[in-house]
Amino acid sequence: MKDLRGQKILVSGFHAPTLGVVEAFEDAVLTLDDAGRIVGFEPDGDPTGATILPTGWLILPGFVDLHVHAPQYAQLGTALDVPLEDWLQTYTFPLEARFSDLDFAKAVYSALIDDMLALGTTTALHFATVHVPATTLLADLCLAKGQRALIGKVVMDDPDQCPPEYRDASAEDAIAGTRAVIEYINAMPGNDGMVHPVVTPRFVPSCTDACLSGLGALAQKTGTRVQSHVSESDWEHDYVRVRTGRSDAEALADFGLMVPHSVFAHGTHLSGSDMDLMIAHQAGVAHCPLSNAYFSGAVFPLRAALERGLNVGLGSDMSGGPVASIWETARMAIAASRMLESGVDAAVAPEARGRGAARIDFRTAFYLATRGGAKALGLPVGSFEPGMKFDAIAIDPKAAKGTIRLWPGYDGDLVLEKLLYSISRANIATVWVDGLRRVG
Amino acid sequence: MKDLRGQKILVSGFHAPTLGVVEAFEDAVLTLDDAGRIVGFEPDGDPTGATILPTGWLILPGFVDLHVHAPQYAQLGTALDVPLEDWLQTYTFPLEARFSDLDFAKAVYSALIDDMLALGTTTALHFATVHVPATTLLADLCLAKGQRALIGKVVMDDPDQCPPEYRDASAEDAIAGTRAVIEYINAMPGNDGMVHPVVTPRFVPSCTDACLSGLGALAQKTGTRVQSHVSESDWEHDYVRVRTGRSDAEALADFGLMVPHSVFAHGTHLSGSDMDLMIAHQAGVAHCPLSNAYFSGAVFPLRAALERGLNVGLGSDMSGGPVASIWETARMAIAASRMLESGVDAAVAPEARGRGAARIDFRTAFYLATRGGAKALGLPVGSFEPGMKFDAIAIDPKAAKGTIRLWPGYDGDLVLEKLLYSISRANIATVWVDGLRRVG
Repeated sequence: MKDLRGQKILVSGFHAPTLGVVEAFEDAVLTLDDAGRIVGFEPDGDPTGATILPTGWLILPGFVDLHVHAPQYAQLGTALDVPLEDWLQTYTFPLEARFSDLDFAKAVYSALIDDMLALGTTTALHFATVHVPATTLLADLCLAKGQRALIGKVVMDDPDQCPPEYRDASAEDAIAGTRAVIEYINAMPGNDGMVHPVVTPRFVPSCTDACLSGLGALAQKTGTRVQSHVSESDWEHDYVRVRTGRSDAEALADFGLMVPHSVFAHGTHLSGSDMDLMIAHQAGVAHCPLSNAYFSGAVFPLRAALERGLNVGLGSDMSGGPVASIWETARMAIAASRMLESGVDAAVAPEARGRGAARIDFRTAFYLATRGGAKALGLPVGSFEPGMKFDAIAIDPKAAKGTIRLWPGYDGDLVLEKLLYSISRANIATVWVDGLRRVG
Repeated sequence: MKDLRGQKILVSGFHAPTLGVVEAFEDAVLTLDDAGRIVGFEPDGDPTGATILPTGWLILPGFVDLHVHAPQYAQLGTALDVPLEDWLQTYTFPLEARFSDLDFAKAVYSALIDDMLALGTTTALHFATVHVPATTLLADLCLAKGQRALIGKVVMDDPDQCPPEYRDASAEDAIAGTRAVIEYINAMPGNDGMVHPVVTPRFVPSCTDACLSGLGALAQKTGTRVQSHVSESDWEHDYVRVRTGRSDAEALADFGLMVPHSVFAHGTHLSGSDMDLMIAHQAGVAHCPLSNAYFSGAVFPLRAALERGLNVGLGSDMSGGPVASIWETARMAIAASRMLESGVDAAVAPEARGRGAARIDFRTAFYLATRGGAKALGLPVGSFEPGMKFDAIAIDPKAAKGTIRLWPGYDGDLVLEKLLYSISRANIATVWVDGLRRVG
């Protein structure tokens, strides 16, 4: 297929403009302006002159990944069996330290962006590394390859918590580096809403108070989103309380880091009042159910968070999460929600085993994977409504080497459910970002 | 690639001949006899005259799926959000009832076998339907297409538990039909250990005592393996205790159904003494972690079972489990084991949240997916030792549309871990069963 800017297209598929509600459309007429923005979406529009996709292709909004450690792509699916401390010190920090080498950075980042786009992830919120040059390189690559991206230089300046060979030299250095990345990205030629800077303290434990305060002031002053981790594990949750006398969410807010459309990863141990605080600040959560199984010691109470009104999307958390695909992440969000509801240990009586009433279904998971993530970021993508940019994937259910088998008699949103459970990369025929074809 | 019977082959890859131990080999010399049996496996053998695989290809033993409801493939990934009773009565039983139509049966079974083989599943333990003709058709198709298979006519004769339009007419009918399938499969021309009959009571609740006793006698007399479900859920576990005064495993054993190399699905609620009983009878468990998240209300205590000495393999449980691939099942076995260990509800104190000491790693999951499953069935496949039949897959990490990215510096069994977490169908270049090429 081709670029679709300025065109009228006849499309069938699904989107979820609001939480929990899937809309199917068949031979709808979608009209884009010359900047790739949707200016018309008519279920029964006039198809005269429309571009027609191959028979059987279905379109979905592109997926949004709210939590990616971009440099860790080289070790995706590696050493998940070792203790967290070993995983960090033996594998992760030494790998990230290698991004002082721009050739290595280019190789890893290029592979990551190519592969994420091929898997249908059109928007990603990236942690880079502490290095400014490799971080701006990532921004260059996302713009050139056409992944909508939010990118931050990782900040970790506390010598008590970070290895000497991989940390910011000082709070001042960390803040200056962050400012440099913000200025670079905001000034990139041709960057019309495609790449955004993000203030990125790794997490409260890795940063000094001075650094966190400085980053908060910078974020507020420049109107830049923030990303970090929040209450990922018992250890982190307790560490922040002991050090600051507040919950992790409260500490982040007090350091000025909870600016609108900021996103914090995990939140498995957030309290109800922490969630309310995040809602009040228009901050959201990147729910990373695959990673949580390995590193969090609990399941994020997703349904409770959604019922409170918290903005949530899905995160792969590469490489704490071991897979790159947002659809496997969506499947795990559903499975984990049921395990939270029912509990896991048959030796405990059923009524005491789980939390009860925690399950979500595929409609909610699909929303989180698309519009939910985009809404958390405050970006005009994730559904096919007028005013949205056209970030979309076309699925060919009959693609060679594909894994989807649709059967007659299973209609409506059962088709979407089947797609989510059985899609693989080979079924993704074309990916468009901002109305431009980027895959296929 | 080609058939490999009677040849010498130069191979690199991995296998796990025993629980928890992965062996890597590089340029090993594998020799097959004319029946596809491995007669030599020499890590440093003489490669003269050997068939050489394309550069970079890695071989693994074919995967073993210990629990498949073959007719349900048409609804894979469908209606996972509805209550179990609705899932059974609205979707599953009406679908299975359609297998009185042999044209429909042929379409679904052909797609299933083709797709499972393409995903690398070279051995499957299939539940068919209550219909004898469709069950023998499944056997014909497995033999023709070359999936090593164990196949049973489903038995469900209790009018109190089964719908009138989909059940055996009587215990006598059910037993006679089972006998007919056993005789048919054992007499199939050209069936040299490829297809095996299995006595298949759906589960204790769906069968009368007379029927279960008769099936037990038939299994014992004919030396036929049995498959069923065991203690899948609180409901099933409690139902059998109320009806029989015994645990589900005890009831199955007392009905004579626990013959050697029988396999029972799920077992999430098995007690330690149930497991010991199964060990004493040389019976095994099909662990179905994806399905368990939806329907079991608990995680099978896998590590405890393995430490006791119970034979365990992995089951997709299509379509109670929503995906066809054994590698995603293996990933979920790892994740679920960690969730059982840590618990799921952050509102519970960490020390009371999980069961503790339940985690398994990718080495164990890989063993379960290959040799573990084969050992439970008593089949000479699942590893590359002399005496085994050559059931194997070749992975091309660089295949077009594939999803594997190997990076220099990650060696040894880290490569296997990466394969398990990132493989997709497009990476499976060739599949051999019994030394014959069946895919690629």
